[in-house]
Amino acid sequence: MNSFNFHNPTQIIFGENKINNLKKYLPKGIKILLTYGRQSIHKNGLYHQIISQLSDFEIIEFGNIKPNPEYTQLQEAVKLIKKEKIDFILAVGGGSVIDATKFIAAAALYDGDTWEMVKSIGKDIKKALPFACILTLPATGSEMNNAAVISKRDNAEKLLIINKHLFPQFSILDPQVVASLPQKQIVNGIVDAFVHILEQYITYPSNAPIQDGFAETLLKTLLELTPKILENPKDIDVASNFMYTTTLALNGLIGAGVPQDWATHSIGHELTALFDIDHARTLAIIIPGVWEVMFEQKKEKLAQYGKNIWNLKGTTNEIAEQAIEKTDEFFQSLGILPRI
Amino acid sequence: MNSFNFHNPTQIIFGENKINNLKKYLPKGIKILLTYGRQSIHKNGLYHQIISQLSDFEIIEFGNIKPNPEYTQLQEAVKLIKKEKIDFILAVGGGSVIDATKFIAAAALYDGDTWEMVKSIGKDIKKALPFACILTLPATGSEMNNAAVISKRDNAEKLLIINKHLFPQFSILDPQVVASLPQKQIVNGIVDAFVHILEQYITYPSNAPIQDGFAETLLKTLLELTPKILENPKDIDVASNFMYTTTLALNGLIGAGVPQDWATHSIGHELTALFDIDHARTLAIIIPGVWEVMFEQKKEKLAQYGKNIWNLKGTTNEIAEQAIEKTDEFFQSLGILPRI
Repeated sequence: MNSFNFHNPTQIIFGENKINNLKKYLPKGIKILLTYGRQSIHKNGLYHQIISQLSDFEIIEFGNIKPNPEYTQLQEAVKLIKKEKIDFILAVGGGSVIDATKFIAAAALYDGDTWEMVKSIGKDIKKALPFACILTLPATGSEMNNAAVISKRDNAEKLLIINKHLFPQFSILDPQVVASLPQKQIVNGIVDAFVHILEQYITYPSNAPIQDGFAETLLKTLLELTPKILENPKDIDVASNFMYTTTLALNGLIGAGVPQDWATHSIGHELTALFDIDHARTLAIIIPGVWEVMFEQKKEKLAQYGKNIWNLKGTTNEIAEQAIEKTDEFFQSLGILPRI
Repeated sequence: MNSFNFHNPTQIIFGENKINNLKKYLPKGIKILLTYGRQSIHKNGLYHQIISQLSDFEIIEFGNIKPNPEYTQLQEAVKLIKKEKIDFILAVGGGSVIDATKFIAAAALYDGDTWEMVKSIGKDIKKALPFACILTLPATGSEMNNAAVISKRDNAEKLLIINKHLFPQFSILDPQVVASLPQKQIVNGIVDAFVHILEQYITYPSNAPIQDGFAETLLKTLLELTPKILENPKDIDVASNFMYTTTLALNGLIGAGVPQDWATHSIGHELTALFDIDHARTLAIIIPGVWEVMFEQKKEKLAQYGKNIWNLKGTTNEIAEQAIEKTDEFFQSLGILPRI
């Protein structure tokens, strides 16, 4: 096992109807910026459910945040925070809204060019407004980590920021939100979480049975629940395990003390920046090819994955090759584009 | 899966020689109370290693903390903190020193009878001095949780306190400390961590494949490393996995969202309070009996454990019964007293 530093101070409030306890977790007397995406929280009643609890607070809204949050649009939110003297941001959404919120929380307190702040990979962030999340779309894990990805379409750039000030204070995870998601979003969530786990697991052996076992548990759980959740996203037990898996897939735990390889994400971000392909789909398209190119370096872990997740038998090379095929078939079965 | 609230803000700094980075994690200008146990940190050089990094700080010492920390002794530490206007406590030790430190951190800021504070199960704690840990004995998980157990021998009482203010700010985990531990301490650590996992796992099925898989990973890891660590505690890979397992066994993660049953610990604390038997040994002696008494309620999970950890085959009842035997044999193989 490698040395590591693990620190994740985000509080997770998990369960049905936990959104109704929201008020209890907010500091008193704060002025809140409510950030959200497009129409879905109006359609599914979540907007009303949240607003009805915030009558004691002054609320300013910043909605219509788009997938792959755009630097230019977010400048408006930063101006709004400064003008309205906002104390706290409450993000209601999935990874895009939460990532956008992390950026504006930092940008609002940043002196200087905030695209330079992004280009520092977030290293130059010295403080950020406190914020919390109500997760509506299990996928990215952003609700329990300190990373965000911000796009600047002018430059065809999509860049990661990561900083200790970007952990949510708390995140409310109510698995009931899964029921009203379009199937495409659920598929994207499954694939995104699956690849998050793989990027921390398919590297090389490092004598880390705990991290390997945890990663394998999450992969197995995702594979087992995939047909069930596509059949019935209202099944609360399945939705709960799905939501919790996506959070644990990228909260720092399974990657602590082991090598990681984010090549697939790096390439995927370029494809999204250039062609606007859904993030999860870029990952599914790319990862088999990355594994083929890096076969010699990754074959030991591919074989471990093939044995433990896909129950494959044979030599190391045979199992490793079949594991790539199995993964590709799994993604294809979800309606992902042909691999490149 | 059940609803849950998970919040663990302790920073873990893990790896060889990480103790040498101690200064970096301490706030500047603080006056520190250094708490520790008996002779071992003087013998193994750790005391010198730590003190040599603290030349910028004013240090007061409170050593000689005994196993199963005693309320009466700890009153002296509370007085010292008040008299010396201590800002921060640095615990160097295992579970007893860390538990003692949690108590004194809270008691020093508590108005009223501090045994009443303990008897409230820690509920009455409203604040505590900040503190951090350098772990010398992997076993209890106290370095990454908010619980402590305090004894009052006059009353033959050994009681748990638990409170959100009792998380360490940070804990440094250097697996090199395992090399100089007496074999008895290593065995106690293995058994303590093993039973911590079991008390969160051997309950009843609750549709929680993630928590079950994580618990099973930790159990398997402990079983696989037991002969290796007893053979050679200097093997740093084995020591690392041992140390990390004991921390994850009781940091709130595997118990979040699932039923728990701490009956074995509750009975064990009474045995220690009355007869001064090592904590871990009380657990190993008692748990097979608890399982026999609760067989009908626990047999489904006992059978899952028997299948997944001990590779047993047969009916649910047969596997469950054999799993109890296997667990008892494992503890006996470590030199634990006969079960009751």
